[in-house]
Amino acid sequence: MAASASGPQTLVLEEAVRLACGRSLESVEVAYETFGTLEDAGGNAVLVCHALSGDAHVASGPGPAGSERPGWWEGMAGPGLPIDTDRYFVICANVLGGCSGTTGPGSVDPSTGERYGLRFPLVTIEDMVEVQARLLDSLGVDRLLAVVGGSMGGMQALAWASRYPERVNAVVAAATTGRIGAQAIAFNEVGRAAILADPAFNGGDYELDLPPAEGLAIARMVGHITYLSQESMREKFGRRLRDRDEHAFEFVSEFEVESYLAYQGRRFVERFDANTYLYMTKAMDYFDWQPPKSMLPRFLVTSFTSDWLFPTAQAREIVRVLLERDAEVTFAEIASPYGHDAFLLETERHGALVAAFLARALEDGRCLGGAL
Amino acid sequence: MAASASGPQTLVLEEAVRLACGRSLESVEVAYETFGTLEDAGGNAVLVCHALSGDAHVASGPGPAGSERPGWWEGMAGPGLPIDTDRYFVICANVLGGCSGTTGPGSVDPSTGERYGLRFPLVTIEDMVEVQARLLDSLGVDRLLAVVGGSMGGMQALAWASRYPERVNAVVAAATTGRIGAQAIAFNEVGRAAILADPAFNGGDYELDLPPAEGLAIARMVGHITYLSQESMREKFGRRLRDRDEHAFEFVSEFEVESYLAYQGRRFVERFDANTYLYMTKAMDYFDWQPPKSMLPRFLVTSFTSDWLFPTAQAREIVRVLLERDAEVTFAEIASPYGHDAFLLETERHGALVAAFLARALEDGRCLGGAL
Repeated sequence: MAASASGPQTLVLEEAVRLACGRSLESVEVAYETFGTLEDAGGNAVLVCHALSGDAHVASGPGPAGSERPGWWEGMAGPGLPIDTDRYFVICANVLGGCSGTTGPGSVDPSTGERYGLRFPLVTIEDMVEVQARLLDSLGVDRLLAVVGGSMGGMQALAWASRYPERVNAVVAAATTGRIGAQAIAFNEVGRAAILADPAFNGGDYELDLPPAEGLAIARMVGHITYLSQESMREKFGRRLRDRDEHAFEFVSEFEVESYLAYQGRRFVERFDANTYLYMTKAMDYFDWQPPKSMLPRFLVTSFTSDWLFPTAQAREIVRVLLERDAEVTFAEIASPYGHDAFLLETERHGALVAAFLARALEDGRCLGGAL
Repeated sequence: MAASASGPQTLVLEEAVRLACGRSLESVEVAYETFGTLEDAGGNAVLVCHALSGDAHVASGPGPAGSERPGWWEGMAGPGLPIDTDRYFVICANVLGGCSGTTGPGSVDPSTGERYGLRFPLVTIEDMVEVQARLLDSLGVDRLLAVVGGSMGGMQALAWASRYPERVNAVVAAATTGRIGAQAIAFNEVGRAAILADPAFNGGDYELDLPPAEGLAIARMVGHITYLSQESMREKFGRRLRDRDEHAFEFVSEFEVESYLAYQGRRFVERFDANTYLYMTKAMDYFDWQPPKSMLPRFLVTSFTSDWLFPTAQAREIVRVLLERDAEVTFAEIASPYGHDAFLLETERHGALVAAFLARALEDGRCLGGAL
């Protein structure tokens, strides 16, 4: 059983997906990419789970034209990198509810011929995992060497350990939490309120080329502040003015940090869907991890000192409940000024930990005769 | 020269106010309240400066009907309280650009007969101080025993020391900063963006009873998160659901923190003007304090451990530059879980410091023969 690297693909699930909310989705498509080669013994498969605004394109290449664009974890996944596509068969799929190829609120409901919009069912992190499991079935991956994710991707990695403990050998949960706190829920709610208040939102029924751009941009601006640290914002922007020496005394973007946020907001609207933003944030709000009771995989839990969105205390809480269950846990808090974004940026120090953890998991699996 | 307690009053300035932006306001009204009695020697006057959403009503009573409603610093100012209206003649005025009686963007421009809206000039913290100085002139207060303020009010207190060092004996700067950082500017900009994006905003030309309610509410929600600490939000709300045991799987407010924020947003719209919100946040963004070179008053600088909006490091920076100038500075960081709001809530511990500081300033003034 060997699969070659394939680039962007789409899988149509054969059976309906029953969701945590009680509803079912009869027709689900999954956009995914794979990198590297699945070994005959099947023991080198690594599922990478993306965060709120990510997609299946975790790394550049291989594949058809366009696949050379940088992936969202470019320094972490690829040939010779910590998630080494020369050694591992790496799978990354756009999550259920997403807007980059997998079925979500922007998809057409086959029962009506119209886009779902807010008629799309609310999905949970566990629902995302269920769809990923179906994808692995179709790829012939019975068992994962590891599931790896940061932020909302880390939530999926944790959920994998609980929902399919028999299919996961190792879990990397980076910059994540078993449950977000009141402040993070509050920031998510502000973003949702900004989208819902935009007249272009129209109850979720907008044309995809006429999105609630202002509301989504504001949501992204709020989010972006929470991804950075006070320290990194001070270093990066301070109180510098952009293209001027004196204050404008007008309501224009004049501080660099204002221009930067406005730019981030605009750019996000070009690549992300407002309805999906609502669904992703709600999935994060709902996530309330119950660790597995048995067959615990080994864990690597990482946090970053300046991450105030998913702070180290919440990572330590994951570690605490795992140790209570006698799990094998490696925990590292990495010193970084980059806030929550550090899990994307600190590929060197973080990458060394992930590389060693995955290599050891692979080695131990081989010592067990490849049976994992 | 003695003035009695008077309750709400309005002063019409006799001369135009020239502003930092270069423009002038020909006609300025100032809404203010006074409490207590100005001593003949004039040495017991205390100016209290309010924060972004405050007004002249620092404490309940005395005055006509309605003045019994609680003031915004109710536990701090009043008979027998730290800012003791039995001992001090306490003055508090709505700031220039405000929406509680003092001339601001909601006022009618006498030259056009229309509301200013965004045609109102941008005002600075120093412009606010200038108007307060005119008010003191009219009240016969040549010199202040102290100027006291927290947050944006603390900025005004600092600006008083620089602009009128000869008129200030003591300064209380609570939970404030000489200049806000990139993160605080960013949060202010998000709030402004939400207001500007609301179609009801109409470029600032809205009827006061048809305000950009959704935009202003979102701005307040963002602000409110920054006034609380992660710790206090966790204590107060955690992940508790409101009026339900299970998730709704709909886009409704279901976590208590969501309901609370939505309520704070709605309530704010009832009492505050969106244009003024723009002007106040911009004044804070612009503030860049240059300490006085001579005649420095004595200072009490306070900060609160969990205040991440105006963190202790920024208070320490104020202290540092004051000590470089050989000023007499008392600094205290007060342990509190309440975030930036602590300056309003920690009236006991914070109040004891303020009370002692003011009493000593009064005593020292009297030892100098009342000449201050």
